[in-house]
Amino acid sequence: MSNTTAPKRKGKQTAETPGVYIIGAATVAGEKESQGPFGNLYDLCDNDPYFGESSWEKAETKLQKRAAQMAATKAGLSMKDVELLIAGDLLNQCISSSFAVRELAVPFYGIFGACSTMAQSMSIGAMAISGGFVANAICGTSSHFCSAERQFRTPVEYGGQRVPTAQWTVTGSGMAALSNTCPPNGAPRVSHITIGKINDKGITDPNNMGAAMAPAAADTITAFFADSGISPADIDLVVTGDLGKVGMEITGEMLSEQGINLNGKYKDCGVMVFSDDQNVNSGGSGCGCSAIVFCAHILKELNEKRLNRVLLVGTGALMSPTSTGQGESIPAIAHAVLVENS
Amino acid sequence: MSNTTAPKRKGKQTAETPGVYIIGAATVAGEKESQGPFGNLYDLCDNDPYFGESSWEKAETKLQKRAAQMAATKAGLSMKDVELLIAGDLLNQCISSSFAVRELAVPFYGIFGACSTMAQSMSIGAMAISGGFVANAICGTSSHFCSAERQFRTPVEYGGQRVPTAQWTVTGSGMAALSNTCPPNGAPRVSHITIGKINDKGITDPNNMGAAMAPAAADTITAFFADSGISPADIDLVVTGDLGKVGMEITGEMLSEQGINLNGKYKDCGVMVFSDDQNVNSGGSGCGCSAIVFCAHILKELNEKRLNRVLLVGTGALMSPTSTGQGESIPAIAHAVLVENS
Repeated sequence: MSNTTAPKRKGKQTAETPGVYIIGAATVAGEKESQGPFGNLYDLCDNDPYFGESSWEKAETKLQKRAAQMAATKAGLSMKDVELLIAGDLLNQCISSSFAVRELAVPFYGIFGACSTMAQSMSIGAMAISGGFVANAICGTSSHFCSAERQFRTPVEYGGQRVPTAQWTVTGSGMAALSNTCPPNGAPRVSHITIGKINDKGITDPNNMGAAMAPAAADTITAFFADSGISPADIDLVVTGDLGKVGMEITGEMLSEQGINLNGKYKDCGVMVFSDDQNVNSGGSGCGCSAIVFCAHILKELNEKRLNRVLLVGTGALMSPTSTGQGESIPAIAHAVLVENS
Repeated sequence: MSNTTAPKRKGKQTAETPGVYIIGAATVAGEKESQGPFGNLYDLCDNDPYFGESSWEKAETKLQKRAAQMAATKAGLSMKDVELLIAGDLLNQCISSSFAVRELAVPFYGIFGACSTMAQSMSIGAMAISGGFVANAICGTSSHFCSAERQFRTPVEYGGQRVPTAQWTVTGSGMAALSNTCPPNGAPRVSHITIGKINDKGITDPNNMGAAMAPAAADTITAFFADSGISPADIDLVVTGDLGKVGMEITGEMLSEQGINLNGKYKDCGVMVFSDDQNVNSGGSGCGCSAIVFCAHILKELNEKRLNRVLLVGTGALMSPTSTGQGESIPAIAHAVLVENS
């Protein structure tokens, strides 16, 4: 006996995921993000970093829950019709996601991909839908500057100096609703997924995540083109998740060495999410970075046909303060999803 | 346009996953586990809690890596032929899994389901294979008594007193190799998955995880029977992941209230993994608990046809020391996979 479903596998890391539509998405963002280039695109912005809660962690929980609820509403789904929610975050034991989902009473997979979570959640969601196991899935993640700073670095009250390679963790959550049913007016499809491998080139500086993650991004982008047979000429945009200026430059160089020239069709969510005058050094970071840029800006460009084929490459640094303290270098991973109009 | 794949969805939380075979599995365990009822079934036991490494975290990384390598070998797969590895663990940012996978160079999804991870990883792996997205997947998890104690409670050197409801975190890793190809002599199939919802009944005592997780276990077991149309009479065993004696008793009572009587066909990995004389209070716990009991004992019973239809229900408590410190109760989840010979 063998599997009765026709293989959708393409090459070593990629698969086609036919029949998966992004039918809605929502974003919640903080004050600094609201002042960035996409400030007017976020569904909800709050200038209170606590979002009315008593701790940074509860604030992050709240913004993720609100994003999930709004994504369902915008997709025309009541929460009881949601068949799967996939989320993760940066906090220890992913508490933002678990506590956000707690009151939603939906089937839930918790995942951990650090800042690759947005792409990873859509990757798993696309398989679940395309394979016929669920009819829809809400996929997303969150991060919060203050909850991340005190967990990974020092409490913000310390006012620590930031090095030029440092990035600024985005306060925000993005959630995308995927469905097996295309709405009457059409919707962008998640048509391919490329599952990342861990890359670790020996970077040990936790203030230089871009350099740590760049090899993983280049590796997954290279795998996507090799596996799918799609050429860079057939893509409108490759957008990496939060590598920042430093990591983006390294990724561009590594791709050139592989003979992949994206010729101005390459951007990075970490570079895009804030303006140059917002004092964020190398750029934005955190799970919420690619989540809000994708769900607010990229999807709008796709829905309004200014972009028609975008490879979203979420990048994650899979270390912890404990591993760094024990002298370990930083393993990184990148997951890609191809989102296209057709 | 709609999805071209026939729906495999059954009811609100369950799906069929045809064509997924467990073609190999491996376990690594610590000294205390080796002295338990299944001590002679583990593939590798080491009496050194450091497993030759310099920290508890590196020890846990090593045992998870060895389990993955052995699972691949026992399944007749070289690591370069592995199309997906799905793993997670209890440590902050799931570093045991990320660092274990780092040198294996395989496509990787990190997940977080606390002690439900073994079942959750097989649940996602079964979808990925049954849907035709990958040909095989290695699914598993690990935990380590010492790395968990110092992260969640106090360093073991403190010699803290343990309350009667406390459980003992298993030092061990279990990994199962799933494939779309049935071996000539047959193999147990992962035939159904039930995706859990988060349950939180307000338990705030982190030393009584069994009580916190029991409602999630009962909820998922109830959903499985309702969704699948399979009756308890058609099952040889329902085995929950690490509820321990306290949680198992509560789960049994909650199921009875739902009219589900398993009549002696209900066991718990946390109760099974250690003997009564091993001084573990309510029983074993940790991601590794259901992983080693399933991969070493349950699979052997299935392979040797003493059991033919087993519902594995992994149970996870999704809190962190931070959430507990902030006065939150403990959200819990349970994921189920039906494993059967046929």
